Formats: sequence, structure tokens, C-alpha cells
Amino acid sequence: MTEQDLTDKVVASFDTAKDERFREVMQALVRHAHAFVRETRLTEDEWSAAIAFLTAAGHLTTDTRQEFVLLSDVLGISMLTVAVNEPGLGDATESTVLGPFFVQDSPEIELGGDIAGGASGEPSWVSGTVTDTGGAPVSGARIEVWEADDDGMYDVQYDDGAGALAGRAHLFTDAEGGYRFWGLTPTPYPIPDDGPVGLLLRHAGRSPMRAPHLHFKVTAPGFQPLITHIFVADDPWLDSDSVFGVKESLVRPFDRHQAGTPTPDGRRSAGPWTSARFDIVLRKE
Amino acid sequence: MTEQDLTDKVVASFDTAKDERFREVMQALVRHAHAFVRETRLTEDEWSAAIAFLTAAGHLTTDTRQEFVLLSDVLGISMLTVAVNEPGLGDATESTVLGPFFVQDSPEIELGGDIAGGASGEPSWVSGTVTDTGGAPVSGARIEVWEADDDGMYDVQYDDGAGALAGRAHLFTDAEGGYRFWGLTPTPYPIPDDGPVGLLLRHAGRSPMRAPHLHFKVTAPGFQPLITHIFVADDPWLDSDSVFGVKESLVRPFDRHQAGTPTPDGRRSAGPWTSARFDIVLRKE
Repeated sequence: MTEQDLTDKVVASFDTAKDERFREVMQALVRHAHAFVRETRLTEDEWSAAIAFLTAAGHLTTDTRQEFVLLSDVLGISMLTVAVNEPGLGDATESTVLGPFFVQDSPEIELGGDIAGGASGEPSWVSGTVTDTGGAPVSGARIEVWEADDDGMYDVQYDDGAGALAGRAHLFTDAEGGYRFWGLTPTPYPIPDDGPVGLLLRHAGRSPMRAPHLHFKVTAPGFQPLITHIFVADDPWLDSDSVFGVKESLVRPFDRHQAGTPTPDGRRSAGPWTSARFDIVLRKE
Repeated sequence: MTEQDLTDKVVASFDTAKDERFREVMQALVRHAHAFVRETRLTEDEWSAAIAFLTAAGHLTTDTRQEFVLLSDVLGISMLTVAVNEPGLGDATESTVLGPFFVQDSPEIELGGDIAGGASGEPSWVSGTVTDTGGAPVSGARIEVWEADDDGMYDVQYDDGAGALAGRAHLFTDAEGGYRFWGLTPTPYPIPDDGPVGLLLRHAGRSPMRAPHLHFKVTAPGFQPLITHIFVADDPWLDSDSVFGVKESLVRPFDRHQAGTPTPDGRRSAGPWTSARFDIVLRKE
């Protein structure tokens, strides 16, 4: 039996699958995985290392630490999956990776509220509109935002926090599609690199750093959900984001303001703050 | 940025790897994984299902349950890895998969001893020689054998056994390269199918059954290690082994003997028994 005979036999073993799409995906997986093994002449030690890698990743993974998502992220598989699902051309806002730190039940804030919830960092006023591709406002759109604090840590990464949520919230657009909230000026941070994915990056001579960003997930009835970030303009990590998430159209200036400057909601900030604008365009379902 | 640009960027991110082979393998992995995502237009739900699958596999995996090895086995990746490492042509005995049930520290038995150690099943007298490709005997070769009992279970699969080893042992060839031991007549059994790999097989309409077999691992100084099985001739599962491990050259008749027939070591068996011969040819390093 030749190597190709073996591949053909494994592909054929999925012919009995009732679900056509499952069959198609699994047969493609077998063909591509086998092509990889044949091309690299993978050694048995390398195969064992791969099994050990996956085992270690599995044992590290919990509800709040997702090593397989990180693996997919650093191999660009997450971003490619985003790309093949990007719904065509047009003026709608582009997507990027979800990342491993999204949490279902974030606190709700009022428009103009603060997402920090105790997370440390420089205040940042973020505002904009949600419209459809024709420019009509989308009122009542649900905007989920989440970000790391200025130690580069998401709330769920603190194991002493007993699940306290911070640096994340959701809010709804007003009748004109407007939204505004206080967040934190995003800072660069490393993806969790104390596990097998971190080891992989070190072997690759790659940095674990992510370009500073603020996560958005925007949903509204009748529209396609949007999962995206905004990135901080002029940041040195924009060109080497460890998960390949940066898109030009998502880079925004975060304007710097001195301590004491009046803020858009009429307060005076005790310290320096920033502001950024992000107008979101949703595509109809 | 096009989909191909993204792939190129991820491949290039491994250019900084110091180890040339690591770079080669990872860049090939990225290219083939991306080709799979592009070809199938993998949906985000399918990506999430893959992450959930790997997470479940990781959480099920322990020292004695290796779901990632099973996954590799049922996708034919293990057997293909064996194939690309099979050391060229010649008369040496062929390899097959290691499987997930090998244990490092098996008990040693004398020539003619019994590997059962309490495992249930019909006794089977297995004997043969270990020689080099020129036919010269290899004395002192270490032969590890292991197999399931007649309930289709390996010792390590019993969680009430407190680690008791059964159905496995090692022994050494004599001055003429000969070996002989009492094992159990192999019976068909399902690979563990109560986890995500079992679910995958059910979706595929595939059976989890393995063709009945007895595992061998043979090592001797100056020779390439051999990991293989012998399979029971005329078994109905030979053509649909769930891990694609069967090779024609490894199929052996297990001759049946009536209760009371004298055994090769001069005893009379109280019940029926079988016998099989397996002459092993090792390749020099």
C-alpha cells in the first residue's frame, strides 16, 4: 500500500457520513493533514512532540484560559477564518479575531458610563455611531466592549479576583445610533505565553505582543454580527501583532488630552486622558 | 490584504526560527492548515466546534487515556507517519501504529512465560525468531508485547485496577534468536469511543472496531527499533480496522487446538487454545 493509497483509504472512510458538509470538511482535513505529513516526512519524534503539545494545551485550557484559541491565533488560522467569512465587499466595518477573553455576561452600562469597573489605566473617551451601509442610524444596537488593563491583563486572567468582571461592559446605541463610554487607553500586552503556545513563539523567535486594541462585538436585529477591534494609531506593535489581527481600516488615533482639560461629558479629568472615535457600519443579514 | 497575503505573512513570521527543521515543519503546517481553511471556507461555527473538540479531547486525556493519539489514529495520521518513516525496502518486518496503550515498565517474563497476569482470554502460544535481514539470529533482543483481554480492554483502561499490569510483558530472545510465550488469542474491540473521537466516528458512520491484534515492540543494540502488531488471519475486521493499521505481511494464522491437546511446552491445556508463529526481521541501524 503506497502513501497515497493510505490517504485515499482514510478519505473514503468518511464516505458513509450522512451530513454532506461534515464529510466535505473531514475529507479535506484528511487530505491536507496527510499532505503535510508526506511533504515534511514528519518523524515519529516530531509526531510525539505534537501529541505532547496538544496534551499540554488541553491540560492548561479552562473556562478562562483557552490555549487552543491562542494556537489558532498565532498560526493565523483564526484571522484566516475571519477573512473567509467576511461578508463580501462594501462599506461595512471590517472584522478581526474574537480572541480568548470574551465573556458572555458582561455588566450593562448607561451611555457615557465607565467600563473599567476597577481595572487600572488611563481613561479614554470612546464614541461614535452605529449605522447601516446606507448611513441610516441603528438604534438599540448592543455593543460589547472589552480590553486589558494597563498591566496587560484581562479581568479573567486574575485568579485572585473570584470572577470579578472589569474592563468589560455592554451598552446600547441611542435613537440616533450614537454611543459613548469611558474605557481605558489600550496598551500593548503579551498573549499568555507561559504555556505551549508561548514555547512555540520562543522557538520561532516571535514576540507574544499584541498591538494595543479595544474589542467590540456589535449586534442588532436584522444585521450581521460584527466582531472587531480598534487599534491605536502609530503604535510600534501594529506591524507585528502576534495574532495577525491588524487591519488598516481599524486603526484609530487616540487623541491625548492634558490633565484638567474638560472632558466631553463636562467633567474635569484629574489626570491625562485620551479620546477616540469609531463609527461602526453594520451589514444587513 | 488578501487571504494569500495573510498566509504569506504567517509563514514569514517563522523565518526568525533558529532551528531549521522547526521552521520547515511549522511553515508547512501553516501552509497546509491555511489551504484547508481556504478550500473549505470554514465557518466560524465550525472553527468553534474544532476548538471545543480539542478542548474536550484535552480534558479527557490522562496518563492512561490519550484522545489525541486516537484522533491521529482514526484520521490515518499515525499510520502515515509510520509509513513515511518505514526504512526503505527489503525483507525486514513491517511496522504499524504504536497505539495509545503502550506502557514503559512492563513485567519481565522468562521464555515460555505467560503475559496474562490475570487478564482473561483464551490462551495463545506465540513463538518465533528474531533475525537480521541476512538471517543471522539476534540474541538478547528485547520483545515487548501487549494486548487487550477478551472483554476488549487493556489493563490501563480499568480504573479499579490501581495500576495492576496485565496482558503485557517483556522477554528476551535466546542464543538462537528464539522467543516464545503464552499470550491471549486476540479479539476485536472498539477503540475508546465515549469521547469526542467516538462522536466523530459516529458522525462519519464509521465503526470504532479494531481488527484483533497483538502488539510487539522489538529493540536490540545496533538495530532499528520495530513497533508492530500481528493480526489474526480471516478476521472480518481486517478490511475495516478503525486506525488503518493492517498490513498483509503482518496477518498470521492463529491455529486452533482442542481442549486437552498437548501444548508446545508439554502441558495439557484444560481448555481450547491457539498458536501463532511470528518470525521477526530487524534492520541494522
